[in-house]
Amino acid sequence: MPHPARRDALRALLAEAGEVDALLVTDLVNVRYLTGFTGSNASLLVGVDGRDAFCTDGRYTIQAAAEVPDLPAVIDRAGPAALVAVTVEGHAALADAAAPVPLHRVPGLVQRLREVKDADEVAALREACAVADTALGDLLAAGGLSPGRTERDVALDLEVRMRRLGATAPAFESIVAAGANAAVPHHRPTDAPLRRGDLVTLDFGALVDGYHSDMTRTVVLGPAAGWQRELYALVAEAQRAGCAALVPGADVRAVDAAARDVVAAAGEKENFPHGLGHGVGLRIHEAPGLGPTGTGALAAGMTVTVEPGVYLAGRGGVRIEDTLLVRDGEPEPLSRTTRELLEL
Amino acid sequence: MPHPARRDALRALLAEAGEVDALLVTDLVNVRYLTGFTGSNASLLVGVDGRDAFCTDGRYTIQAAAEVPDLPAVIDRAGPAALVAVTVEGHAALADAAAPVPLHRVPGLVQRLREVKDADEVAALREACAVADTALGDLLAAGGLSPGRTERDVALDLEVRMRRLGATAPAFESIVAAGANAAVPHHRPTDAPLRRGDLVTLDFGALVDGYHSDMTRTVVLGPAAGWQRELYALVAEAQRAGCAALVPGADVRAVDAAARDVVAAAGEKENFPHGLGHGVGLRIHEAPGLGPTGTGALAAGMTVTVEPGVYLAGRGGVRIEDTLLVRDGEPEPLSRTTRELLEL
Repeated sequence: MPHPARRDALRALLAEAGEVDALLVTDLVNVRYLTGFTGSNASLLVGVDGRDAFCTDGRYTIQAAAEVPDLPAVIDRAGPAALVAVTVEGHAALADAAAPVPLHRVPGLVQRLREVKDADEVAALREACAVADTALGDLLAAGGLSPGRTERDVALDLEVRMRRLGATAPAFESIVAAGANAAVPHHRPTDAPLRRGDLVTLDFGALVDGYHSDMTRTVVLGPAAGWQRELYALVAEAQRAGCAALVPGADVRAVDAAARDVVAAAGEKENFPHGLGHGVGLRIHEAPGLGPTGTGALAAGMTVTVEPGVYLAGRGGVRIEDTLLVRDGEPEPLSRTTRELLEL
Repeated sequence: MPHPARRDALRALLAEAGEVDALLVTDLVNVRYLTGFTGSNASLLVGVDGRDAFCTDGRYTIQAAAEVPDLPAVIDRAGPAALVAVTVEGHAALADAAAPVPLHRVPGLVQRLREVKDADEVAALREACAVADTALGDLLAAGGLSPGRTERDVALDLEVRMRRLGATAPAFESIVAAGANAAVPHHRPTDAPLRRGDLVTLDFGALVDGYHSDMTRTVVLGPAAGWQRELYALVAEAQRAGCAALVPGADVRAVDAAARDVVAAAGEKENFPHGLGHGVGLRIHEAPGLGPTGTGALAAGMTVTVEPGVYLAGRGGVRIEDTLLVRDGEPEPLSRTTRELLEL
């Protein structure tokens, strides 16, 4: 059970922060990270003195006992207020129960912890990536990317395959963008049919045990035209450069620049209008952000996406994205689908 | 286009609040409500003087122009900071650009507006409810609820049907709970097969144009046993009482009590461990909350769920839920599936 260890790590950060006796955690994702609870209403009090308390409501009595066996549970709809009241009541250090408890804001502590994944988290992310890889492989094998199908058909097909492979849900609204739509980085699938000669971008992922995967592949329906092949080669080179820059200690802006410089050298700087990537875990987008305005450095155990894209308005675009694990030496790609241009 | 009207309504609230020249809106759901923008990164500045500005990043340049044609767009990854800087820069009333702009917190204003739905919102909610109704009807007609299928099969089947009917996604993780699992209010579908004689609870909804529907039906696989029929009749009576209490001006606690009293009179008070319902709209759970600890009163134009449930540990449970529109006179049920006990 990694959850007590995670709470202990948080306790150590709290002690460093000083002045704080207990941290009230109300963000559900953070509560899940620290307790394992997966319901939709909960809060947690983490005490510097080692005494923690968990609160949820009456819908989750049974689930809380199963998922959080190691913490006393307060079942109360009022949530955080109840938790503070109950815990404060029994707090020996509180000399005068009538005195108001001073409240401090200590933002970002749990998010900071969450940037570096532990073994259980990496296992879940690995599985989430494998589900996405397998679903895409099966879709391709079944001829699911063929002229005449609509963007919406393909998105639903991919998502159903991920569900049958064990995903709880898609990690986010899947992007399937064909032809000129592939020039819109966050295009929403439409009833537009795929056509021979189209570049088709698929950006999707699986949610497994609360963890998200995120990958993008761009394929061509038929033999690639010269400009499509060149565009693909450029983005693939940028993606390799970005991945190669993923080393512990690297400044996130330097990682972004490694890929962006490749695109800029080809004169396409203006056509890469987004950051290179982002952390991924219990949220699809989390720290660290890999972009020109990012801050901080990489550390071993972070899982991030690397997803350069170049978009030519009216013609199409290419984005290639993997989820990778930062570690000493080369990063480990958790997404395994080939990065070669597929001509279907 | 209702969005300018919504911003004007917010402006009026801001003027009431006093002291505030402009409100910075960063919650994406609120930004969508006030502008129509559906992307994943945006902020909005609403000025009391009638000048508003919208900000998103380079992934959404084309989408912003299409969805928010009526507002000047700032394309900048830095988001809120850029928006404030740009707008403040041009603000004639700011006598001294060097002086720090005082920041006030004005929480809950947009949420307050969002409680009462306008015609466009009701239309989207009506469609979201219709998609869920139709998907369930089709599932039943296709024999999709039969012994041997797993909870997970049924959930995916329902969700695929909703997608094919036009839903972007399920409104939330669908609940399919059979047999003893139906005694767990927020059970997650498992690979447990449905069995003859089971009570099966389906709690699900569709996301359409950003709006959520939410409904629950409980059915029996085969002829109902006496206890199942009695339990169902009790919950149905509580649900009717809750719906009948949905009138403009009603205190939310009184609405909850109308249903809860029915359950309590039957000696099952302890087995109804959650609130009666909640507002539903751009979020699946929003104000007002209809529960014993809720605050406030209903108003015409609110859309809320009414969902009493009684759960018998180890045996099963019944929950019946509709999404309804509060209006003068009787509420309008937006969920139309029969509330009679279905014996399949």
